[in-house]
Amino acid sequence: MMVEHNGLDIMCSNKYCHSSSSSSSSEHDKKIFSKLKCNLSRDYPKKNAEIVSGQYGTNVLLVGAALMLAIAHHGPTVKEDHFLSFVTCLIIVQLFWMMWYILVRHRRKDARTERDVHATSCWIRGGLTLLALLSLIMDAFRIGYYVGYHSCVSAVLGVYPVIHATHTVAQVHFLWFHIKDVIKSLETFERFGVIHAVFTNLLLWCNGVMSEAEHFLNNHMRRLSALGYANLTIVHAEPQCNCTTSTCSMFSSSLYYLYPFNIEYHIFVAATLFVMWKNIGRTIDLSSTRKRVATKTQGLTLGPILGLLALASTIGVLVVYITHMEESVRTRQSAISMFYIYGIVMLVFMSIGGAVGLLIYRADYLPLDTTKNPSRQLDTKLLFGSSVGSWLMSWCSIVAVLGAESSPPYRWTNLIYSLLTVLEKYTQNLFIIESLYRQQVHTKRDDPELLPAPEIFSVTSSLAPPYTGIINRAYDTPDRACVAMENEQGESGQVYKCPIKPSEVSLPGGNKVVRPLNVKKQVLKNISIFLVMCNISLWILPAFGCRPQYDNGLEQETFGFSIWTTVLNFAIPLNLFYRMHAVSSLFEVFCQV
Amino acid sequence: MMVEHNGLDIMCSNKYCHSSSSSSSSEHDKKIFSKLKCNLSRDYPKKNAEIVSGQYGTNVLLVGAALMLAIAHHGPTVKEDHFLSFVTCLIIVQLFWMMWYILVRHRRKDARTERDVHATSCWIRGGLTLLALLSLIMDAFRIGYYVGYHSCVSAVLGVYPVIHATHTVAQVHFLWFHIKDVIKSLETFERFGVIHAVFTNLLLWCNGVMSEAEHFLNNHMRRLSALGYANLTIVHAEPQCNCTTSTCSMFSSSLYYLYPFNIEYHIFVAATLFVMWKNIGRTIDLSSTRKRVATKTQGLTLGPILGLLALASTIGVLVVYITHMEESVRTRQSAISMFYIYGIVMLVFMSIGGAVGLLIYRADYLPLDTTKNPSRQLDTKLLFGSSVGSWLMSWCSIVAVLGAESSPPYRWTNLIYSLLTVLEKYTQNLFIIESLYRQQVHTKRDDPELLPAPEIFSVTSSLAPPYTGIINRAYDTPDRACVAMENEQGESGQVYKCPIKPSEVSLPGGNKVVRPLNVKKQVLKNISIFLVMCNISLWILPAFGCRPQYDNGLEQETFGFSIWTTVLNFAIPLNLFYRMHAVSSLFEVFCQV
Repeated sequence: MMVEHNGLDIMCSNKYCHSSSSSSSSEHDKKIFSKLKCNLSRDYPKKNAEIVSGQYGTNVLLVGAALMLAIAHHGPTVKEDHFLSFVTCLIIVQLFWMMWYILVRHRRKDARTERDVHATSCWIRGGLTLLALLSLIMDAFRIGYYVGYHSCVSAVLGVYPVIHATHTVAQVHFLWFHIKDVIKSLETFERFGVIHAVFTNLLLWCNGVMSEAEHFLNNHMRRLSALGYANLTIVHAEPQCNCTTSTCSMFSSSLYYLYPFNIEYHIFVAATLFVMWKNIGRTIDLSSTRKRVATKTQGLTLGPILGLLALASTIGVLVVYITHMEESVRTRQSAISMFYIYGIVMLVFMSIGGAVGLLIYRADYLPLDTTKNPSRQLDTKLLFGSSVGSWLMSWCSIVAVLGAESSPPYRWTNLIYSLLTVLEKYTQNLFIIESLYRQQVHTKRDDPELLPAPEIFSVTSSLAPPYTGIINRAYDTPDRACVAMENEQGESGQVYKCPIKPSEVSLPGGNKVVRPLNVKKQVLKNISIFLVMCNISLWILPAFGCRPQYDNGLEQETFGFSIWTTVLNFAIPLNLFYRMHAVSSLFEVFCQV
Repeated sequence: MMVEHNGLDIMCSNKYCHSSSSSSSSEHDKKIFSKLKCNLSRDYPKKNAEIVSGQYGTNVLLVGAALMLAIAHHGPTVKEDHFLSFVTCLIIVQLFWMMWYILVRHRRKDARTERDVHATSCWIRGGLTLLALLSLIMDAFRIGYYVGYHSCVSAVLGVYPVIHATHTVAQVHFLWFHIKDVIKSLETFERFGVIHAVFTNLLLWCNGVMSEAEHFLNNHMRRLSALGYANLTIVHAEPQCNCTTSTCSMFSSSLYYLYPFNIEYHIFVAATLFVMWKNIGRTIDLSSTRKRVATKTQGLTLGPILGLLALASTIGVLVVYITHMEESVRTRQSAISMFYIYGIVMLVFMSIGGAVGLLIYRADYLPLDTTKNPSRQLDTKLLFGSSVGSWLMSWCSIVAVLGAESSPPYRWTNLIYSLLTVLEKYTQNLFIIESLYRQQVHTKRDDPELLPAPEIFSVTSSLAPPYTGIINRAYDTPDRACVAMENEQGESGQVYKCPIKPSEVSLPGGNKVVRPLNVKKQVLKNISIFLVMCNISLWILPAFGCRPQYDNGLEQETFGFSIWTTVLNFAIPLNLFYRMHAVSSLFEVFCQV
């Protein structure tokens, strides 16, 4: 296929594509048209191809969003079936594209495909596989639910989970074997394929988020009417016939515990596919590929212990909170107070952790790595972007607390909790982003304390070769291992020096000291593993129903029910994504420090 | 100030900042602390400084957003005064920063400041000055309104317009004399100053958008209750006392005609300041600075004529629409039908214009310019991002039309109008973005038709010097004037050749042919000026009250009142910004083609 394409290109450039100075008008017209035809068959310029495909993807998502908004109104015309049919079509198109892609790669197995090593790591793919498995269970439950009600619900509800399960399996296969590919042939076409996959997953994410938000809103309203607060009608799309099997209610209630995993699965796949899209047509700088340094786990005690403590207390808080919510006003209030106190303790520790990490980086000055890396750029933008949801929620809480007329017992703890949420995300983002941008240089300068300072070096220089100092085994890409060293003579601040390449130096036997992990690194590793566990904790709570923002009533008083639920429906999914994304980024930091 | 800072830096790097291998523990600790102190006083790494300041700005905006949401609820606690006090504080901080910045620049007048020539153009600043003047009139009206009601409204309502007017004047001065500066000293501090200015303007934009949306919603509900459709209470924050002057109602009603200009002013200033922020610490590639080619207006007839026709019919449609809206259901429906038919005609012509432009680019293959240019990158992202609002609105309309149960006369014209809106933005974005990315190379290869094709060249080569061909006066940066030429011998597609620099070549007298603008360029110029006027037209209509999305009832039926007004409150301001931004980008295209 590609050969034909290239052949056409060459033919074009040789025969027709030159502009001619001939003055004959009809011939001139003919030439212009043949030139136009040739240019159209040529690959589209990269920037345009990005925009064309990006606009296509955005519009696909927006069609879905429009359908979802219509469903949210529970109007008479647009039903969930319509939306599911649309999504099923998108999924089938993606399946065809993936099949085509895999077949083409298979046929051209001999041609080496460039790969972007930064695209995903083994454990990200492993995690995605786990999430995919839980998604498959969810599909199985959906099929079971359809079987029970098949006489009175649309066939789409049966077809959709089958197609979705196929899609999940195919996509996991794609993630394992093709996600790192740097596509260099038929770029424009492939661009459409990849962006279609990205936006299909995003749409599935949106759908999951909407279903979950609706579920929580219904739950919330049920509680409110149980307490006699509100008289709101709960819209339930229950089927009109009886279930033919005995497991229908089990299926539909279990579904909600699997939703959080399904949601994270789709958004993560969308992010990894987006990196693949950004990589299309890119020229990879091969010198920057390097082997991963084996993770050392020496001296890793305080971080994991504190982290496990946090996780355990989280489970406790979750159980107490959910059981207390169903009871009297007084119990509810004590549960909410408990949540805020727990949250304050967590966030104080997390903020301290992030701040200590940043201080260590300040004490250990290194220039940042600025090589191109779409995966890292996306990580940064996503962290920043998804923080916005939580920040908005926190500032709304602060405004509500300061302006509130009623004063429940948790009023001021809510204020402190909200302020700490802002602060914690602020420091954590800085810590993660700086770690991601430092890591490459960092792995090379494994032990900065071992680099002797010039003035001391001059005293002891008779014992070791000058400037090569102690060669560290971590220099696995010697070409790029230029370490910033302050120089003694220069008045202009700093000078960058390249140590002599290790391959050119014979190591003196006495220098092969196997040193334990340096203290700074140990601290950083402990901090990152602690933050990983804390972020998992703060993901678990809202994902499984501990959402005091719905229950505390303060914000609702200031903003009104509809504005506040809109804010929450926007902010909570973003916050959930933020926590999961922070976990994956922090784990990367942990591996690379 | 800067000299002291640098001095400290040098002292640090010479005396304390080396790590030492001394084993004495207390001395070691001392050294670590002094190193830490030195590193903290050093300028923060660029990436981190970006994140720190970006997070600060985002949070400032979110505090404002939280206050605005609380006001939108019309609750008892948070009033507009609180929000205005907050904004006034932000404005005062920005004023202090601008004063400080201008003073520092003034003191170091002798030191040459680097400037980014792409940052803004003369006519953008001119346009902003005009918008600023209209903003000042608005402030004057606000002061007049306050004077009338001063006995019963908060003093903040009098202080705010005075401060805002000062801010406007100071900001316009800043725009004219400092917006192109590339800041290279005290980077971290300046970064905070600039981002503070960006987000202050964004917040003022949000505030304007909210006030306008509320005004339209009130108008809409007034009409609905006049027609007996709905029985909604309109919340008006009217003062509790009588106006002491006779002009209060004049002031408050005129304000709404000035809002659209004020809104555009703030968002444009925010965008230009954001480019300044991106430029901080950047090293400008001086070779890419070039003089602007004088705009030729030869052969410019069809575009401006059609454009003026569009503008004139827009004014007509606007007047008819607004007067008809106040009348019976039948007249309303005919006005809405008229709007859609007018819209379809406009959008068809605009889509054709964009498509023709793209075909011309396809016929005239050129590699795109990929040099770094934050201003252009931002333009691209903003065009793309602000299209989303309008696309969402269009897809919602399409879903509503397809699912509607009622069938008003404008049902199917609404469908066609919505589809064309999607298509028109799609082609227009592509056209603008490709134009912006081509322009630099394009100005150099002024007349591609004049470059002789090699095979014909070989026949006539006895008459002209080889390969330099006809030298065009438009080569103003000869170093970069490498023109892509397909070569005859190579099988590999294309080869880039640099023509000999014009300065090194003596032009043969016979080649100094002053040719008229080439046909393609004339067409492109006509298209861009036509699109400019069409975009102005499509800005005028919603800005001054022609919003059939509120009036046609179809979408409201499918999505419900609250969801649909939320969508509109999000989408219409984005669409207004899109149109204005497209005007400025297309004008740039017009100047550069």
